[in-house]
Amino acid sequence: MNGRLDEVDKMILFELQKNARDTSSNDIAEQIGLSASTVRNRISKLEEQGIIRGYHVDIDYERAGYPLYTKIICTAPIDQREELAESAMEVRGVTAVREIMTGERNIYVNAIGEDHDELSRIGRELTDLGLTVVDEQLIRDEFVCPFHGFLGEHPDCLPGDES
Amino acid sequence: MNGRLDEVDKMILFELQKNARDTSSNDIAEQIGLSASTVRNRISKLEEQGIIRGYHVDIDYERAGYPLYTKIICTAPIDQREELAESAMEVRGVTAVREIMTGERNIYVNAIGEDHDELSRIGRELTDLGLTVVDEQLIRDEFVCPFHGFLGEHPDCLPGDES
Amino acid sequence: MNGRLDEVDKMILFELQKNARDTSSNDIAEQIGLSASTVRNRISKLEEQGIIRGYHVDIDYERAGYPLYTKIICTAPIDQREELAESAMEVRGVTAVREIMTGERNIYVNAIGEDHDELSRIGRELTDLGLTVVDEQLIRDEFVCPFHGFLGEHPDCLPGDES
Amino acid sequence: MNGRLDEVDKMILFELQKNARDTSSNDIAEQIGLSASTVRNRISKLEEQGIIRGYHVDIDYERAGYPLYTKIICTAPIDQREELAESAMEVRGVTAVREIMTGERNIYVNAIGEDHDELSRIGRELTDLGLTVVDEQLIRDEFVCPFHGFLGEHPDCLPGDES
Amino acid sequence: MNGRLDEVDKMILFELQKNARDTSSNDIAEQIGLSASTVRNRISKLEEQGIIRGYHVDIDYERAGYPLYTKIICTAPIDQREELAESAMEVRGVTAVREIMTGERNIYVNAIGEDHDELSRIGRELTDLGLTVVDEQLIRDEFVCPFHGFLGEHPDCLPGDES
Amino acid sequence: MNGRLDEVDKMILFELQKNARDTSSNDIAEQIGLSASTVRNRISKLEEQGIIRGYHVDIDYERAGYPLYTKIICTAPIDQREELAESAMEVRGVTAVREIMTGERNIYVNAIGEDHDELSRIGRELTDLGLTVVDEQLIRDEFVCPFHGFLGEHPDCLPGDES
Amino acid sequence: MNGRLDEVDKMILFELQKNARDTSSNDIAEQIGLSASTVRNRISKLEEQGIIRGYHVDIDYERAGYPLYTKIICTAPIDQREELAESAMEVRGVTAVREIMTGERNIYVNAIGEDHDELSRIGRELTDLGLTVVDEQLIRDEFVCPFHGFLGEHPDCLPGDES
Amino acid sequence: MNGRLDEVDKMILFELQKNARDTSSNDIAEQIGLSASTVRNRISKLEEQGIIRGYHVDIDYERAGYPLYTKIICTAPIDQREELAESAMEVRGVTAVREIMTGERNIYVNAIGEDHDELSRIGRELTDLGLTVVDEQLIRDEFVCPFHGFLGEHPDCLPGDES
Repeated sequence: MNGRLDEVDKMILFELQKNARDTSSNDIAEQIGLSASTVRNRISKLEEQGIIRGYHVDIDYERAGYPLYTKIICTAPIDQREELAESAMEVRGVTAVREIMTGERNIYVNAIGEDHDELSRIGRELTDLGLTVVDEQLIRDEFVCPFHGFLGEHPDCLPGDES
Repeated sequence: MNGRLDEVDKMILFELQKNARDTSSNDIAEQIGLSASTVRNRISKLEEQGIIRGYHVDIDYERAGYPLYTKIICTAPIDQREELAESAMEVRGVTAVREIMTGERNIYVNAIGEDHDELSRIGRELTDLGLTVVDEQLIRDEFVCPFHGFLGEHPDCLPGDES
Repeated sequence: MNGRLDEVDKMILFELQKNARDTSSNDIAEQIGLSASTVRNRISKLEEQGIIRGYHVDIDYERAGYPLYTKIICTAPIDQREELAESAMEVRGVTAVREIMTGERNIYVNAIGEDHDELSRIGRELTDLGLTVVDEQLIRDEFVCPFHGFLGEHPDCLPGDES
Repeated sequence: MNGRLDEVDKMILFELQKNARDTSSNDIAEQIGLSASTVRNRISKLEEQGIIRGYHVDIDYERAGYPLYTKIICTAPIDQREELAESAMEVRGVTAVREIMTGERNIYVNAIGEDHDELSRIGRELTDLGLTVVDEQLIRDEFVCPFHGFLGEHPDCLPGDES
Repeated sequence: MNGRLDEVDKMILFELQKNARDTSSNDIAEQIGLSASTVRNRISKLEEQGIIRGYHVDIDYERAGYPLYTKIICTAPIDQREELAESAMEVRGVTAVREIMTGERNIYVNAIGEDHDELSRIGRELTDLGLTVVDEQLIRDEFVCPFHGFLGEHPDCLPGDES
Repeated sequence: MNGRLDEVDKMILFELQKNARDTSSNDIAEQIGLSASTVRNRISKLEEQGIIRGYHVDIDYERAGYPLYTKIICTAPIDQREELAESAMEVRGVTAVREIMTGERNIYVNAIGEDHDELSRIGRELTDLGLTVVDEQLIRDEFVCPFHGFLGEHPDCLPGDES
Repeated sequence: MNGRLDEVDKMILFELQKNARDTSSNDIAEQIGLSASTVRNRISKLEEQGIIRGYHVDIDYERAGYPLYTKIICTAPIDQREELAESAMEVRGVTAVREIMTGERNIYVNAIGEDHDELSRIGRELTDLGLTVVDEQLIRDEFVCPFHGFLGEHPDCLPGDES
Repeated sequence: MNGRLDEVDKMILFELQKNARDTSSNDIAEQIGLSASTVRNRISKLEEQGIIRGYHVDIDYERAGYPLYTKIICTAPIDQREELAESAMEVRGVTAVREIMTGERNIYVNAIGEDHDELSRIGRELTDLGLTVVDEQLIRDEFVCPFHGFLGEHPDCLPGDES
């Protein structure tokens, strides 16, 4: 246990990781043996604490007709890394930004260019922000899955153990 | 326009990117001026085509008490890249896998270690699959945002333009 | 099919890739079962659209007595990449420039030095333009071949299918 | 002068570099003040010696509807470099191969993927040949130009100086 | 607070970091306002838990007449990293080993060669163990200091707060 | 022999490397057959010469509850390397600094972050000093051992051989 | 044959490469069947042309008591490469400088530090000149040998063939 | 002083570094105020000890008509580094080999190719020996100079101080 999430929180998060849209609070409540209002309260609290940051649809961009879905690896000066990661979100075409704890290759940007000119424009705008673009690579495919750690050691944990 | 998604599909995907859980088909329908049943049909079709792969909750793992949320960069032999990307999903602790179109540093794995032994185990299991682990870096923060390209040139697109 | 080139365009380009000098419009017309004037019109249109940029003789420089035929790999600041790629063409001794979609190692220059002083001068002039020279390597040999994709799935495509 | 090409050869090659298709032997003959039959003889001899390897049309692939025009950088074992460079030409989608005089990153392949699966297949086939794919990058643009060295120190060289 | 070390433990460790030899349990006891036997008990417990691994003299090897004090950076196969880090300790001349959580450059060995042959032998023995030696660099100087985090937010923490 | 340390010095240093805290001068004296006062004099002299720089407790930080024990690899401008290595010691959270004899990756800093914000702050402060942070990696484990070279060729060296 | 050196020049250079000190012009003359005065004249001419730059004793520095014989790899701005290579010769401790035809890692300096402070000083002085020191590595051993190409295809070439 | 070379040895080596061919023992004797026979004896002793390994003529290969004078950087398995460095000397075209004290890029070979095929053959033969060729770069120029350290602190050292 780690003092922040209890077993109920973990079970809720695990269910939401599997399907954040089609799993209602009622479904989760039934699954883990608590009332729907408890589940709703827990979710609200996780949202307020910033532990849940949002709910996203996962799109296969190539299948959707965008072959130039690209990972752009950047270096930010270390004292501007946080600020630049946030600014990168504003660049049209960017879909995700990850901030990595190191001095080089420390901002990973996912972006979609509709054509080469668009990809060039995105690279230029990231540069104008103060980032150094180090590499650009096509994303072939991506998969997301729930964090099994939320299942704890007892994968068939019982309802009610809100210790 | 690119022949696969029309403007209605794009508007629906854009709304789901903003909030995949709390935005009902009714909300979207109202937003874009179509019937809820049309929205539901479109979503089903996007799911069937594999363009929508799922809906995920976005968790701030450090805030949730997991400081060892890590990006593990691997190299797969190029003829096993797809297969190994899928296998990596089975490793306990892994939360996402991205397959990159190149010969080295071509599998990016996000994973959570509850302690150093767990991180070591994850690295070992990825190696046992046949991946070469090249780098491991703490993920400081991550941000996801909608793809503005779905808004087209006309950001205030009108209802009904299902051309 | 991709909306820009039809099968006739592709067959013409394929023939020109094999031999751009000794293949007359008549030869191509005969090969694909259309009139020579149609072939000439198509070629003109491809030239006007900028899809055909030119016709080049392919020289074996070492055999021609120039052992210092060299690939010079440069980095351009990303917001000047296009402009610098064009300027590099002006440097005496440069025979080709390729602009790569990334932040480093993003301009590839082929150049011929008649002796070491010439190679040094070329490196200096590229630097003066604002490029950073990262690597220089002798080109041992080069081969060019037609793009088989122009043959489509039906490699023995019949005349007349200008669908 | 370097013992292999004389000034006439150089002038002919220079003209062919500018436009290999629309410049007839007559045009060149007129330009440099020799008879057309001399020009034709010289060209034949350059072809027989392997100094002229062919004549290629230069295509802007992105404009032609192929955004995935890619530079694939490979490493061949040094004792198989020549042989593998030639084999790479056989892979469907490959349009050019350059062999570089070093131990790593020594084969540069240009290739076109019609979609991600095609690019993956090309990478796999290059790997199956025995190449190690090190990097893959989109080619943004390319420019080819004549080798000014063929103009010698006397850019307005007179006809007849076949010394 | 993090559940493992309380403030007393931290103060004891901080004193030992400053001088592990000339600071008796009595000195520490006096410094932090507890009895010497409490300090001795705490130290024993920290040793038993493996939190204190030992006490080392810090030697300036160049001043001691060993100019070839060297950092040898190695890569271990990730599934043998722990085992090889321990084996490296057995190589004559090695003075420290650090195991890093990544796939390459993941074992740092400090070693002293009395001459070039000795350094070569150390490299060879590390290789024989199964390590790949990636780099070797002379250590110019090294400095060790106490971890200020042990002082907590209250750098002048009072005795008795063994909460 | 190398003119700076004689065999007695080496034996003393070897004993202190094994356990710098619990090995009294009496213990060492007995071990090597000299008087305790001789041992104490020798130790004082080694301290005065700067050959002994201090005595440190060796802490297993992960076991102590600090999972973010990190190796931060920096580059200092070569003419400020010494000065910056010393300044890095002042950054809160830093526990060791090693200065390496090269132009890049020439300062290795060990540091402990209590959370991600702390690690970010340490990186920022090192940057503010003038260091470039190149890499950051979790330290999985570390081992320190005596320098066997102090045992000389005669591992069972007799007392009295203060030649 | 390459127009600059004839077979006699090559034989003379080959003999001087084997032993530049103990091989008199008479010895060479006898070896290749020409008069000593011809050999002396040829050597003078090779010196005047700058083809022979000097005669050096080859010293095993480690055996001579200098274990810190080091290869320092630098990057010069490409437009100052020649000038900086020459300036590097002035730094006390430097014994050789090689200028490489590329944009990075383009100046190789061999230097001897009598101790760590000396090596640091050399690095600092190279930096002060405008070089960036990239790497420093101990030279373990070096071997020099004659260029067999001077023997031509006929390794037992007869005297008199001054064609 | 370092116990191996005394001041006389150093002065002799310094004179030989300046010009190993045209400086007789008599010249050196006169320069440093000792008898020629003493100088000869000293030189013999330095040769017997292996401190003097030979005397080489220093050739400007580009000026001599060999533009493909190349530095080939190799990696030897660390346990075969010494052996492979010696074997590399046997490859036709190689003029020098340096063995570097590290795990990668640890054999530097200077070689001359008379044309591209020759350079390819040299790379292949080094590979056949068991070396991995990592990089090949043209050597633009090289300079050799005496080691000023042989002049000691007293650059105008007097004769007779054979202490």
